[in-house]
Amino acid sequence: MISKPELSIPEPTLRRLPRYYNYLKELLKVGREIVSCTHIGKDLDLDPPQIRKDLAFTGIRGVPKVGYQVEVLLKSIEDFFGWNNIDEAFLVGAGNMGRALIGYQGFSRYGFKIIAAFDNAPEIIGQTINGVEVLPLSKIKSLCKRMNVKIGVIATPAHAAQEVAEMMIAGGIRGIWNFAPAEIRAPEGVIVQNENLATGLAVLCKKLQMLQQSGKFRQEVEK
Amino acid sequence: MISKPELSIPEPTLRRLPRYYNYLKELLKVGREIVSCTHIGKDLDLDPPQIRKDLAFTGIRGVPKVGYQVEVLLKSIEDFFGWNNIDEAFLVGAGNMGRALIGYQGFSRYGFKIIAAFDNAPEIIGQTINGVEVLPLSKIKSLCKRMNVKIGVIATPAHAAQEVAEMMIAGGIRGIWNFAPAEIRAPEGVIVQNENLATGLAVLCKKLQMLQQSGKFRQEVEK
Repeated sequence: MISKPELSIPEPTLRRLPRYYNYLKELLKVGREIVSCTHIGKDLDLDPPQIRKDLAFTGIRGVPKVGYQVEVLLKSIEDFFGWNNIDEAFLVGAGNMGRALIGYQGFSRYGFKIIAAFDNAPEIIGQTINGVEVLPLSKIKSLCKRMNVKIGVIATPAHAAQEVAEMMIAGGIRGIWNFAPAEIRAPEGVIVQNENLATGLAVLCKKLQMLQQSGKFRQEVEK
Repeated sequence: MISKPELSIPEPTLRRLPRYYNYLKELLKVGREIVSCTHIGKDLDLDPPQIRKDLAFTGIRGVPKVGYQVEVLLKSIEDFFGWNNIDEAFLVGAGNMGRALIGYQGFSRYGFKIIAAFDNAPEIIGQTINGVEVLPLSKIKSLCKRMNVKIGVIATPAHAAQEVAEMMIAGGIRGIWNFAPAEIRAPEGVIVQNENLATGLAVLCKKLQMLQQSGKFRQEVEK
């Protein structure tokens, strides 16, 4: 199935690699040149053998009992993700979430740039947000094709998400980053990455609840 | 260790349950009364036995060869997460991301409410965003204590995140939902849920790249 390519790289690894990257950037800032998996593991609360395995996917090997050169490791992760090439993306839905995404510091570091936004609301169309123009939604299909844009970001309300996804796909978009709290159905050959904010929230609240129920919480608070 | 309570419920399960919940809400809207794991699995592209296992954590059992009553299942997930009780939270950083979070439709469904925002910028302090007042950051510690708020949301730039987390913790906050692209160090007894947006992006872009490299992508496009 094309919509689910056999990924030789596990998704948890893909999710951890940017975390290592951010962490290594911080190390570099404070002048650190060499780092070991043990050290990374301690700081990020992860298992060192797992870290070694994750990093190996980028094609790098550390020196036993020494570790990795921080700069070389950063470069290896950058190359792995192709962050040296900028992926241009269109965003639909220039409400608060859309604006937050357009203005988010740090996407450029990951080779990602929102080059235009689309919306339906006449009062929003024509605005410029952080240098990004808001265009009428009706133009998205033709502009996707003309500009050969392959990534779309959906930041609309839930009820609009599916329709917007279909417009994007009709324009040739192959990767959808979905922030709308709705499941999107996409045909084979299109990758959908759901970013349901409420999921992280639910996990946090449940952990907190379990902590409270365990009784340890109360003891801690009373200390 | 208190910061990492032994969770009898796996995190992937915790992450999937809100997804089932959203999906079931949609089913309810279109008038569906009974649903099976096979059906859910088909729609959400998940393994039915896994779904059955996940749902069992909420204390529900389906009827063999029939399934679950949609409404009862929804109620079971709500009770499991405690979404009937509202968790009140403070947010720090009333920039675009903070505003997006304050205005995000759908958190209330998950028993979560941001009741006040805090910022350092004089031009933002005193504003009201979607009914939520922005207060000076210096007040957060005393207000946390007085209002007994246990959840904090960080939507600041990376460099401010650790300091803000420490102010929250000093005020008695035990669960931090972190949107700043920075790792937060917290003492035992405090749960940190990181929401690094760039991670989802990296996964999407890498999958797209692998799809393209597999050659299937080009064939698809040329069809």
